[in-house]
Amino acid sequence: MPSALAVIVIDAVNPRLVADFWCAVLGWDVLEEEDDIVSIGPPGGAPPGIDVCRVPEAKTSKNRLHLDLRADGTDRAAELARLLGLGARPVDVGQPPDASWVVLADPEGNEFCLLSRTVQEAADGI
Amino acid sequence: MPSALAVIVIDAVNPRLVADFWCAVLGWDVLEEEDDIVSIGPPGGAPPGIDVCRVPEAKTSKNRLHLDLRADGTDRAAELARLLGLGARPVDVGQPPDASWVVLADPEGNEFCLLSRTVQEAADGI
Repeated sequence: MPSALAVIVIDAVNPRLVADFWCAVLGWDVLEEEDDIVSIGPPGGAPPGIDVCRVPEAKTSKNRLHLDLRADGTDRAAELARLLGLGARPVDVGQPPDASWVVLADPEGNEFCLLSRTVQEAADGI
Repeated sequence: MPSALAVIVIDAVNPRLVADFWCAVLGWDVLEEEDDIVSIGPPGGAPPGIDVCRVPEAKTSKNRLHLDLRADGTDRAAELARLLGLGARPVDVGQPPDASWVVLADPEGNEFCLLSRTVQEAADGI
C-alpha cells in the first residue's frame, strides 16, 4: 500500500489569520490549535485538512504549490464576490487575460485559483 | 455554500517526471495529460487530485505549501524505504534532529513529510 495524502501544510507568519481565512473560504472548522500550528478541516474531519504552521519568514516569491477551488452550490460570480469580501485579492501571476480561472491571494499572499466550473458543473462534465 | 478544494497544483519544469513520482508515491493514476498539465488522482478520482503544470522556472527556495503523507497499511519504516527507492531524497529545512516526521523532496525538490503515524494509527488516535 502506498502513502496517503494526510495534510496540506501552509507556512504563515500569522497562522490564526491564515487559518481563519481558509476556514471561511472552505466552510471548514478549526480542529486543533497549538502555539505554532492551527489545524483546520471539514466538519467531520476527512483528510486532507490544512495545517497552518508558524514560520518567521514572510513569503517572497510565487508559490510552487497552490490550491484550486470550485464554487460549491452557487454560481461562480457570487462566490468570487464572497471571496473578495473575505479579503482575497486579485493577483497577476502572468495568467492569460482571457483565463477562465481567477487568480487570488490569501492574507499572506498565497496564490489560489477559483476555477470557472462549479462543483456541480465539473461533476456533470459540463 | 462555500468553495470546495478541487485541485492541488504543483509547478514543474518536467510535469511528467513529477506526476509519475507522485502517482507512485500515492498509488494514483494519470487521469489526463495535455502538453503542459498532467492531472493525477486516486482511482475513482475523488478530489482533491493534483495537477502538475509546466512552468519555465526551476524551484529556488523552500516551498510555502507542502504535503504531509502517512504510510497506509504498512509500517512507516517500510514506506520510507519505498519512497527513497522511488527517488525521494532527505532534505534539511531546519527540522529538529528528533523530529517524529521525515522531510523528503520530490524529483524537482518540492519538500514533503512522511508523518510518524500511519493512517490506521491516526484513525485510532494512537
